[in-house]
Amino acid sequence: MTQPRYDVIAIGNAIVDVIAPVTHDFLVAEELPAGSMRLIDDERAVDLYAKMGQATEISGGAAANTLAGATMLGLKTAFIGQVADDQLGEIYRHDLTAVGVDFDTPARAGDPHTGRCLVLVDPDGERTMNTSLGASQFLPAEAIDDELIGSTRVLFLEGYLWDPAEPREAMKRAIKVARAAGVQVAFATCADFCVHMHGKDFRAMIDDGLIDILFVNEEEAGILEGSDPDAAFESLAKDVPLVVMTRGADGAIAARGNERAKVSPEPVAQVKDLTGAGDLFAAGFLSGYCRDASLEESLVRGAVAAGEVISHWGARPEADLQAMVAKRLG
Amino acid sequence: MTQPRYDVIAIGNAIVDVIAPVTHDFLVAEELPAGSMRLIDDERAVDLYAKMGQATEISGGAAANTLAGATMLGLKTAFIGQVADDQLGEIYRHDLTAVGVDFDTPARAGDPHTGRCLVLVDPDGERTMNTSLGASQFLPAEAIDDELIGSTRVLFLEGYLWDPAEPREAMKRAIKVARAAGVQVAFATCADFCVHMHGKDFRAMIDDGLIDILFVNEEEAGILEGSDPDAAFESLAKDVPLVVMTRGADGAIAARGNERAKVSPEPVAQVKDLTGAGDLFAAGFLSGYCRDASLEESLVRGAVAAGEVISHWGARPEADLQAMVAKRLG
Repeated sequence: MTQPRYDVIAIGNAIVDVIAPVTHDFLVAEELPAGSMRLIDDERAVDLYAKMGQATEISGGAAANTLAGATMLGLKTAFIGQVADDQLGEIYRHDLTAVGVDFDTPARAGDPHTGRCLVLVDPDGERTMNTSLGASQFLPAEAIDDELIGSTRVLFLEGYLWDPAEPREAMKRAIKVARAAGVQVAFATCADFCVHMHGKDFRAMIDDGLIDILFVNEEEAGILEGSDPDAAFESLAKDVPLVVMTRGADGAIAARGNERAKVSPEPVAQVKDLTGAGDLFAAGFLSGYCRDASLEESLVRGAVAAGEVISHWGARPEADLQAMVAKRLG
Repeated sequence: MTQPRYDVIAIGNAIVDVIAPVTHDFLVAEELPAGSMRLIDDERAVDLYAKMGQATEISGGAAANTLAGATMLGLKTAFIGQVADDQLGEIYRHDLTAVGVDFDTPARAGDPHTGRCLVLVDPDGERTMNTSLGASQFLPAEAIDDELIGSTRVLFLEGYLWDPAEPREAMKRAIKVARAAGVQVAFATCADFCVHMHGKDFRAMIDDGLIDILFVNEEEAGILEGSDPDAAFESLAKDVPLVVMTRGADGAIAARGNERAKVSPEPVAQVKDLTGAGDLFAAGFLSGYCRDASLEESLVRGAVAAGEVISHWGARPEADLQAMVAKRLG
């Protein structure tokens, strides 16, 4: 078999994060549970944006954040996602390709605009995310190029994108193509609400043997399995070849068959903004996985990448991740 | 006389900063002297942006940065500047009004787009600025509302905006209105190239007694007066009622008639991005000036505000400036 052209191809939301600090009182007044994520319509987006303080715009999107990190860690990657033909769409494409991610999905003309996520960061660094999907919800099945999907080692799917119908069909198609081509399918559940809404679909895919690598956090695993997180982890590990579960301040654990491994969080001088922690954990993990590193090393790589991204605003790494990982692995 | 409605009204560029880290080698390869500022055309903007790494978008513009800081320090302010009717224009208006600056200049339809500044930050925190003025260069004289200009204590003018013809005429008109209404005129020379190009105009305004408060840095003062910075400061102090000169790592000095005062820079844990240091110095200084504080206190306020803005990315303050100033003044 020839070497695949890509290590990871991801399908995900193309979203520009609009990040501003807020007080706990603001979240209470707006009835936004700290740390939650929701989809909002345009009216609410305009209302909430008007109430937010001055903000910073940084490209985001869960799977795209993972690719940015993975690419900075040396992997060959490509992104499939939908931006609009507007200024934020241009910015989005620039930021992704600037770190070396291939991104050839054409921009979509007309309304709606490129997706935005209003990210409210409270004094604890906890982020409350309010996403207006915009063009992202119209990623068409035609954006899935069979030849492209067949040319990667891992296909990475973002659970957030399971919500809108068009991209969900596109992802189902991509899974089919991937399986036929012997490509590993990785799936990130992304958020509580995704599992609440689509947990049955996710479980059915697992039961059908369509998911090779599952990225979850404790809460998502618990909701998915209807049990406490530890029991959920073990039951998922029975049905998914490789499970990676992040546990917030307790680090992360992974299971591959009977093999188990865990990692503690990297010490961080100051946690500024937790946005992207899970995405970058996946990036670091995949940078080990795609080089056939041990579970332990892959987890350490995940912890280093996650530690970097929570030390500053925004969900894309700023520091030299390669150097950080090399230093940590000694 | 009734109390003026505003403390400071500023006329300036409406520019979104696109900020990315670069190496010293990158600047050399692109023939960009570190710390310099230039105007670039659309072609060069596209070329340079394509070569830049992933970036962060934060609203900027020299005078607007000053207003954002001054407002956070308790002053009543308004901004006059030109954005386009596009996404970056909306973001720009949001960020300025979100901190409490009144901004009622209508957006301009059609091309060109809202102005951008590609800010390249090297490992020393020095920023090299490449500005594509966009809509900013078409601020019309009609944007100057005589009644509005007459309702402020200080009219603050941004030297950068002296370059394009339309805004220059608008500013000349505003100066005339201000003088007739007994409003103090403050002028910031902003950059070496502004003084190289328009130093004669600036000197003529000083000679005509049109400038009450002058904000310069050492280099700009030296170019303006054709002498070393100290001699330039003294000669300017003869002709301008109040001169404030920043001196980089040496802090700043001010002269009002025969009175002299100076301040050292505030200690900063880590200098991350020098963008906005001069703008925020002016903000802090004006927050003292408008409350009839001493020159010394006004300079300390300037140093605190400048110290805050260089400790993070972007030229708008993030921390609680009021609290920082209160703590520093004891």
